Amino acid sequence: MNGADKLCQTLLGNDVDVCFANPGTSEMHFVAALDSRPEMRCILGLFEGVVTGAADGYARMAEKPAATLLHLGPGLANGLANLHNAKRAGTPMVNVVGDHATKHLSLDAPLTSDIVSLATPMSHWVHAIPDAGHVGSDTAKAIGIARTSPGQIATLILPADAAWSNVPEADRDRVYKAKTPWIEPADIEAIKNAADIIRSKKRTLIMLGGSAMRTGALATAGRISNHCNVDLLAARANARTERGAGRVTLNRLPYVVDHAVDLLAPYEHIILIGTGAPVAFFLYPDKPGELWAPGATVSELAGPHLDLTLTLDMLADELGVASTVVPDVSALIKVAAPDAGAITPASLAAAVVHSMPENAILCDESITFGHVVASLTKHAPPHDLLQLTGGSIGIGIPLALGAAIACPDRKVIALQADGSGMYTVQGLWSQVRENCNIVTVILANRRYQILHGELANVGGGPPGVNANRMFNLDNPEINWTALAKSLGMPATRVDCAAELAKELKKAVAHEGPYLIEAMI
Amino acid sequence: MNGADKLCQTLLGNDVDVCFANPGTSEMHFVAALDSRPEMRCILGLFEGVVTGAADGYARMAEKPAATLLHLGPGLANGLANLHNAKRAGTPMVNVVGDHATKHLSLDAPLTSDIVSLATPMSHWVHAIPDAGHVGSDTAKAIGIARTSPGQIATLILPADAAWSNVPEADRDRVYKAKTPWIEPADIEAIKNAADIIRSKKRTLIMLGGSAMRTGALATAGRISNHCNVDLLAARANARTERGAGRVTLNRLPYVVDHAVDLLAPYEHIILIGTGAPVAFFLYPDKPGELWAPGATVSELAGPHLDLTLTLDMLADELGVASTVVPDVSALIKVAAPDAGAITPASLAAAVVHSMPENAILCDESITFGHVVASLTKHAPPHDLLQLTGGSIGIGIPLALGAAIACPDRKVIALQADGSGMYTVQGLWSQVRENCNIVTVILANRRYQILHGELANVGGGPPGVNANRMFNLDNPEINWTALAKSLGMPATRVDCAAELAKELKKAVAHEGPYLIEAMI
Repeated sequence: MNGADKLCQTLLGNDVDVCFANPGTSEMHFVAALDSRPEMRCILGLFEGVVTGAADGYARMAEKPAATLLHLGPGLANGLANLHNAKRAGTPMVNVVGDHATKHLSLDAPLTSDIVSLATPMSHWVHAIPDAGHVGSDTAKAIGIARTSPGQIATLILPADAAWSNVPEADRDRVYKAKTPWIEPADIEAIKNAADIIRSKKRTLIMLGGSAMRTGALATAGRISNHCNVDLLAARANARTERGAGRVTLNRLPYVVDHAVDLLAPYEHIILIGTGAPVAFFLYPDKPGELWAPGATVSELAGPHLDLTLTLDMLADELGVASTVVPDVSALIKVAAPDAGAITPASLAAAVVHSMPENAILCDESITFGHVVASLTKHAPPHDLLQLTGGSIGIGIPLALGAAIACPDRKVIALQADGSGMYTVQGLWSQVRENCNIVTVILANRRYQILHGELANVGGGPPGVNANRMFNLDNPEINWTALAKSLGMPATRVDCAAELAKELKKAVAHEGPYLIEAMI
Repeated sequence: MNGADKLCQTLLGNDVDVCFANPGTSEMHFVAALDSRPEMRCILGLFEGVVTGAADGYARMAEKPAATLLHLGPGLANGLANLHNAKRAGTPMVNVVGDHATKHLSLDAPLTSDIVSLATPMSHWVHAIPDAGHVGSDTAKAIGIARTSPGQIATLILPADAAWSNVPEADRDRVYKAKTPWIEPADIEAIKNAADIIRSKKRTLIMLGGSAMRTGALATAGRISNHCNVDLLAARANARTERGAGRVTLNRLPYVVDHAVDLLAPYEHIILIGTGAPVAFFLYPDKPGELWAPGATVSELAGPHLDLTLTLDMLADELGVASTVVPDVSALIKVAAPDAGAITPASLAAAVVHSMPENAILCDESITFGHVVASLTKHAPPHDLLQLTGGSIGIGIPLALGAAIACPDRKVIALQADGSGMYTVQGLWSQVRENCNIVTVILANRRYQILHGELANVGGGPPGVNANRMFNLDNPEINWTALAKSLGMPATRVDCAAELAKELKKAVAHEGPYLIEAMI
């Protein structure tokens, strides 16, 4: 048994049985070890941004970490943007990054780089395994760190010699077990303080994020809201939100600074549960970074690492919310398929909601076009919403891939802006290879629409030659239907809302991946 | 004039007039500044790996740096793999990475990350501009550092407030000039030592790389070789090699360890000019990392930062090489177009050489399939060869893009493995947008062929389920012809050598980009 075998044994022994991968020569012993353990499901991404984004989507839905297999510093670098998103999502993940054999590092071969420096900004923990004898214990430690609530990025560097050397005889049969960290609720003083604020009758908002976006926690928050007359708001983006009919479905913090400031203006107190303070996504000259009203207090009741469901239960008890108090939940509202006419945010939303099956997973990287979808899906059948948490575009296609691997019996509907989609377009191929149950709707406006808005925001005039060269994707136009087909995926282009609704219905009924290019 | 305008002024004032870009909101003032200076050519990449890879290809051919524009930590991260290659190539480059406004950083908005930690491994110099008043001097410094021989990666972090704030009145009209570093030859003692080794009559090899791969330096090396009976060898991969008919065209250090060891075994001395010592690309159990014969001496005559042409001239003088001694140069050998038959490395090489016009630029990311091309192109018309210097795959398509921007009047022929090509496939779109004069030959073997070989190298058996899932790209098959067309590029698939030759001839005559999918 060599170190690579030990790594496989430890992953599988701790229920990490999916590995999103793009290996290279320095990981070849690990590949051989994976090859000898077919109970590990290896899923190839043709680019590492697909690998890490899929591991994120998988863990959000499976509620356990996947492993990734990345090739040295550059392979890790290619996956960093989606690791950034995963870190912001509170996603558990165990990255295995191969490195040169230890004694080869000083020779500065072409692929040598400082992996620790690269990994640190997008990891909670980075560790280079010193030798084969440490593979078992270090891997178990990494899994335990990944599992630390709400989920952490653990990056293990595996030198080739640690992979190929034999593990000590005595260590072979011992399966190292990872810690499952204990998750506490907020402490009772913090709960009493929050209750005092709520009882003060000053205008109070509870902002929720992280695991508070699940059905049970939201219901408790809804009961507190009704009993105490406080308002609720969701964080701008959340890793996973259970929402739709029968659930407490919240509005979220707007992206546009002025809208957010207006929304928060009335509140004298903001209580945070599982999310940070409401701050601007970007700072603009002459606009605030802190979005709350001057003089308002912002207090954290519970960070995202705590047991938020229990925290909300304790808060409800402290506030004397009777068990008879019920929350306001979303009604199920059937939406008619849109008629002929252009594909607008509203008709897109109608088409999506019209075709959404029960228990769908909605992956949202729709950027500028999708904002209406959130309000209409409030009354759609119950579903999970996965959002872009870290602002680094190019997560949508991999995220849908990972979610579909975790939940093969559920339909994934991915709303995908075209500019962002091109970042990790290779992920469509993996969706086909794994026969994932995903409908991708490409919102083809052939431009980085958000940048047109932002240039106006900073007082730029109408875009000139250079701005248009950097903002527009119209020369040449990308034919997404042909692109998807070239990667083996059935696809159709639609030009009006009625066609979109018709194709969506067909695509949802279709088993396997399907792409609809919506010309907007 | 704000900081962003000052940045443009300084770049243009130092002859940096091409900017490969993928901007975001935090760079919007820089976009507005670029928009007001249409003499700056802005070229959009739909993914940052395209941006940095193209800037590398541009600088290798233009012999001056391009700027890149990257969006915060994640945008930089996406470009790091090709920055790694560029750093290994000795390419000059000025990266402008936008960041949040300084006072916004402490709020930890979603896109906040440690840019310095990310940038450092793949940069020679990283600097965050403190305020608008420093933009001019810091940018000039960055350009000077980029120009430091043989070329360096200078990464400037531009906080949004440094971009949007006004520069001091007194600073507006001053155009800061970058230093052009003085390039020295090797010192005379080193030259005398090398000459002593060569005169010792022990079996000696001169290994050349970097700027010694240009016509003049190679000719001098060839004269030394003939006069002194020493052998010449090129480094495994070089940023830019002038080769072909009429030039001294060298063999290069083999990738396969056993081949390299065999080749180097006879030499008692190895003299390095512009390259590091010959070491293994990867270390394998029971194989050496240092490839030279035990007991042989390896001495560096001149690092890649020195004036290698002058160093070789001085060495020739020291050795008393008469001006009448001529080097062995490659003959021009016409190659017949291959007949019907499979596309093999040999028939590919024949087809390429048969159709190569004078003064072509050959971009080689052919990986396992292209090794024969190097030997046949030795007798092709004179051309430049651009190679993958850092081992991080996914450079080919962007490299060709950048080279074509630098040399619009030359034909670029890109030999592109399919697995590597998928990494930065988005670059095909930019080739179309810029109407680049590029023929891309996709070598479609539908697998990471090199990994099949490497698994065998480490003693793995025939690949099983998991290895095949990670090595093979055959399910689904990628249709590169359709993929290229979906991005606006004319394309054809060919199944035999005769068709390949015919299509290559057509494609070379075609103005603008063209893709040939060679089924191998």
